[in-house]
Amino acid sequence: MLTASQAPLPATVRFAGVVPPVATPLLPDGEIDFAGLERLVDHLVNEGVSGLFALGSTGETAYFTDGQRVDIARTIVGASAGRVPVIAGAIELTSRRVIETAQRLTATGVDAIVTTAPLYTLNSPTEVAAHFRAIAAGIDAPLWAYDVPVRVHSKLSLDLLIELGRDGVIHGVKDSSGDDVGFRRLVAANDAAGRPLQLLTGHEVVVDAIALAGADGVVPGLANVEAAGYVRLWDAATRGDWDTARAEQERLNRLFEIVFQPRGLSGDATGVGAFKAAMKARGIIDHDTMASTVQPIGDEAVARIRAILADLDLLPKAASESQA
Amino acid sequence: MLTASQAPLPATVRFAGVVPPVATPLLPDGEIDFAGLERLVDHLVNEGVSGLFALGSTGETAYFTDGQRVDIARTIVGASAGRVPVIAGAIELTSRRVIETAQRLTATGVDAIVTTAPLYTLNSPTEVAAHFRAIAAGIDAPLWAYDVPVRVHSKLSLDLLIELGRDGVIHGVKDSSGDDVGFRRLVAANDAAGRPLQLLTGHEVVVDAIALAGADGVVPGLANVEAAGYVRLWDAATRGDWDTARAEQERLNRLFEIVFQPRGLSGDATGVGAFKAAMKARGIIDHDTMASTVQPIGDEAVARIRAILADLDLLPKAASESQA
Amino acid sequence: MLTASQAPLPATVRFAGVVPPVATPLLPDGEIDFAGLERLVDHLVNEGVSGLFALGSTGETAYFTDGQRVDIARTIVGASAGRVPVIAGAIELTSRRVIETAQRLTATGVDAIVTTAPLYTLNSPTEVAAHFRAIAAGIDAPLWAYDVPVRVHSKLSLDLLIELGRDGVIHGVKDSSGDDVGFRRLVAANDAAGRPLQLLTGHEVVVDAIALAGADGVVPGLANVEAAGYVRLWDAATRGDWDTARAEQERLNRLFEIVFQPRGLSGDATGVGAFKAAMKARGIIDHDTMASTVQPIGDEAVARIRAILADLDLLPKAASESQA
Amino acid sequence: MLTASQAPLPATVRFAGVVPPVATPLLPDGEIDFAGLERLVDHLVNEGVSGLFALGSTGETAYFTDGQRVDIARTIVGASAGRVPVIAGAIELTSRRVIETAQRLTATGVDAIVTTAPLYTLNSPTEVAAHFRAIAAGIDAPLWAYDVPVRVHSKLSLDLLIELGRDGVIHGVKDSSGDDVGFRRLVAANDAAGRPLQLLTGHEVVVDAIALAGADGVVPGLANVEAAGYVRLWDAATRGDWDTARAEQERLNRLFEIVFQPRGLSGDATGVGAFKAAMKARGIIDHDTMASTVQPIGDEAVARIRAILADLDLLPKAASESQA
Repeated sequence: MLTASQAPLPATVRFAGVVPPVATPLLPDGEIDFAGLERLVDHLVNEGVSGLFALGSTGETAYFTDGQRVDIARTIVGASAGRVPVIAGAIELTSRRVIETAQRLTATGVDAIVTTAPLYTLNSPTEVAAHFRAIAAGIDAPLWAYDVPVRVHSKLSLDLLIELGRDGVIHGVKDSSGDDVGFRRLVAANDAAGRPLQLLTGHEVVVDAIALAGADGVVPGLANVEAAGYVRLWDAATRGDWDTARAEQERLNRLFEIVFQPRGLSGDATGVGAFKAAMKARGIIDHDTMASTVQPIGDEAVARIRAILADLDLLPKAASESQA
Repeated sequence: MLTASQAPLPATVRFAGVVPPVATPLLPDGEIDFAGLERLVDHLVNEGVSGLFALGSTGETAYFTDGQRVDIARTIVGASAGRVPVIAGAIELTSRRVIETAQRLTATGVDAIVTTAPLYTLNSPTEVAAHFRAIAAGIDAPLWAYDVPVRVHSKLSLDLLIELGRDGVIHGVKDSSGDDVGFRRLVAANDAAGRPLQLLTGHEVVVDAIALAGADGVVPGLANVEAAGYVRLWDAATRGDWDTARAEQERLNRLFEIVFQPRGLSGDATGVGAFKAAMKARGIIDHDTMASTVQPIGDEAVARIRAILADLDLLPKAASESQA
Repeated sequence: MLTASQAPLPATVRFAGVVPPVATPLLPDGEIDFAGLERLVDHLVNEGVSGLFALGSTGETAYFTDGQRVDIARTIVGASAGRVPVIAGAIELTSRRVIETAQRLTATGVDAIVTTAPLYTLNSPTEVAAHFRAIAAGIDAPLWAYDVPVRVHSKLSLDLLIELGRDGVIHGVKDSSGDDVGFRRLVAANDAAGRPLQLLTGHEVVVDAIALAGADGVVPGLANVEAAGYVRLWDAATRGDWDTARAEQERLNRLFEIVFQPRGLSGDATGVGAFKAAMKARGIIDHDTMASTVQPIGDEAVARIRAILADLDLLPKAASESQA
Repeated sequence: MLTASQAPLPATVRFAGVVPPVATPLLPDGEIDFAGLERLVDHLVNEGVSGLFALGSTGETAYFTDGQRVDIARTIVGASAGRVPVIAGAIELTSRRVIETAQRLTATGVDAIVTTAPLYTLNSPTEVAAHFRAIAAGIDAPLWAYDVPVRVHSKLSLDLLIELGRDGVIHGVKDSSGDDVGFRRLVAANDAAGRPLQLLTGHEVVVDAIALAGADGVVPGLANVEAAGYVRLWDAATRGDWDTARAEQERLNRLFEIVFQPRGLSGDATGVGAFKAAMKARGIIDHDTMASTVQPIGDEAVARIRAILADLDLLPKAASESQA
């Protein structure tokens, strides 16, 4: 376990470009593979990512205890060693609980906190706004909003986000709402408000299009498998070379088909399971163990995932040969 | 703060009849009113309830920190003083987190733990079953399942519940699914399986009908306002006096209209807010403060609630007069 | 094809008690089995039902053309021959279209029309109220509202229904919303308004409980398979003999398990498919053909359905013997 | 009323580029303004659109009777006079009913038919596929699939669409699912299958991005207000001038804000209501009457819509002056 020796980056740190949600490697017994996590972070930074998203859905954060979450954040901060900023998810039911979790995480040196609307409760937009305001007032780090209706079962409205941005409550949004129309309106409203918000998309298969639409960056789960492609894609988009961006996106989308290879399993088993299987096949991590109680994806799905990797020439030489 | 001196009731304790979800009185500054909570518990037990449901949705459990939850459980256990069994909600994202919470709660002396399917995650029924199995294996108290799709956004299937009951993983179900057809089938399947499960409904306005359908008890939020009526209703149903049960239910349903008096507010503000306002009007608690960040229901709603109480002759004499 | 020689019953005809939604027997080629339909109607009336619901979901009305719907209604009206009143579904997208359909149906002699909120459109409650008002003004028969959110994807609110009842726009409600709490409040609000509405439930497995709660009748799809049981159940409930009502309900619920025997099929294939298979097994209809493009339930499901019928002694003697 | 004198275009007609869903102008009494409709069609064709989508949601098709639908289709076909192809919506509950409607529409000379999955029914994907197959077999025009989950309440899966395309059942898809990730996968799968499908998006605010992602065209309701902008946008995208495309899209999105000016009304009132108000303000139609029973948007919303038009210099000179 590393110690976070470096001081936190200033509160004005901004997250943009490619900011992968870091997967959490696990040992075969289900415990956290800290050495593997350090290696993964080092790998991602070396590939050129511009920030790290710790303890997101891809990081299986919901499955970990408070103590494990702290250990994961500390490890990621330590391994990134100030080379890129780290934003950490504090996924909890309500504001008081988010604050307690966020305080533990900021103590590890993460540069920003991201959280969702309340879970389990039945709140109005006014109460959701108060939730974010209470959290921002209770923590010592910039706060971001995470909009992921498929998990939270409510959508953060454009008006709410702009209001919170304009008032300095939140500094950015990670949008995983799958609503490109809403995202486009958010970009326009944010521009009209003087751009108080950084806007990241969580949808890794439309990064070229979302960049054209005005996103500031992307949080691609698939970058755990292939970060360099996203860095090239984002660079091309940044310089207005849309044909190159699109070509890179299309290549990555062929890779993204790995998440459709597990059959009849849950969303969590399928998505993170495919990522971990591909990461293991590529030698990025040693084990593809899933957090308890998520089911393994099975050998047949792993074989189909390896075939996709082979087609895209993404297997290490030795593995690729053993595949043939 | 009381200390739970009494030993926990044996694991075979069963919850049946009227088991109210205990509201959590708060002081005007938002902190827990422990003296008020003790008084409420004593009041409920004196009214004749047969068990207490601590840290449920009506208890605003989602809004409290780990430490507050323990304090609430300890207070309820202490005040009930072994006169009725206490089941406590461990509402958390996933199994490891539920286990940690449940262990803290069982240490206060609660007799059973109740929890939901995972929150935030995307799990299959197989994974949800594994979730309950992991929790049961990790705690030292009987486990109940809480089915509340409006908050959890998934329904516990009949097959899942019966399987878990038959295997001794869960001892009962609190059903707040609003699916009377499903509940009826669950009763029949439970009978066919030898009745491994106790079946409680959370829907306080159809207790007579659900009792006819075979429920073992009810968890009525409204009992915080008027427990004696539910005790009379259940007694009538138990002895097969359905006309009396129905008449009592219809009286209670006129009272239940208090929850429709707040307008334009959230579900949490409306339901618990109405209960707390009515409890205060009846002198059962001193303050109707809601947990942060839930909005207050406002003076007009309170006035309409008092009018309903007055109509039903449920205001204390002095208050009733000041109403006129 | 019969001609509806008898005059329509007066507009004050009320539907109460057991009012089955009449299934539509089809020939093996998918065309309507008019002789079979006449026989089914005669059978239901002889079993003691108090009304007939033509062209409902169980009648597969959505799958038939305008001309077929008229033919079905005319056949049911003719075969019932004034012995019981007939209410017919006019299931269409919007008010103008409902009116055209309803006019064609009332010309066949049906006594009342029932319809839903608009389909496909995105309407406000105000617009839904206007929809029912426009229809009532455009037809020459009493109008009923059909609340079936699983198909219409919106719920008719209590306030809307009471308003429409009080204004004489609708005469009753067929509730298939699966919301027993809402139904209970509707009963109470209807009582408070002077009972302008007749209230029927579509949920055949909780008729005893819903009768206790104050329903005026039931529209049980399962009565196509076993009408006499529902008549006995309703009679017991009417005279306050709740133990007998419950016992009959529990017997019928064992029969209702037939709808869970088809596996992996659609809701329409499963429900109506099971009813038709059981009706055929009992000799009530000759063919269990489903409307195009609904899939057949398959021989294995049919075998399981026959086993349930045999257990309940509901197979004809010959068939029962061939079963053994 | 025009007569469709021109022969239908061949079945191989393809719809691509800008294909607006034609609004249906109504007279103040709610009857169809056929002269206004002819004028609108002529206007759209003159602005350079490459096809017309008759009887879509923007055309309020759900609110019209069979006879009105035929009259609308005949008018659009007549006014377009073979200059651009016409595809017409046959929005009905199930396949037999779609076929009857489609046959009436193809008799007016429309070049293709578009329909959705069944409405009201509870069907499996297998049954939905059979639905499209039955329709294609029953009509004499190319069939398109319309994917609009917000109205149909089910999504057409990628596998289903590709299967139907590969088998020649459907010739294209109008995607209004709001799922950009799914659309991107559909583009890729369609490419891999040899491009059997034309793919149009219904989301008018992300046309640049969706064009980059590989769409063949767009069905923009907003083009009823400003068609020329969409033609310029599509031309820029076609020649790979993404900066120009984006700039035009951003201008159109400022215009699209008109649909957020009506407050507290239904989706149908808001969207089409705003379009009609803006069309009237621009002099494209004479009346902004909505189909019964949709509510008018009110004078305040109209004033806000005129202000947006004025800001964008989209009011006619005289109107613009009276605005000032």
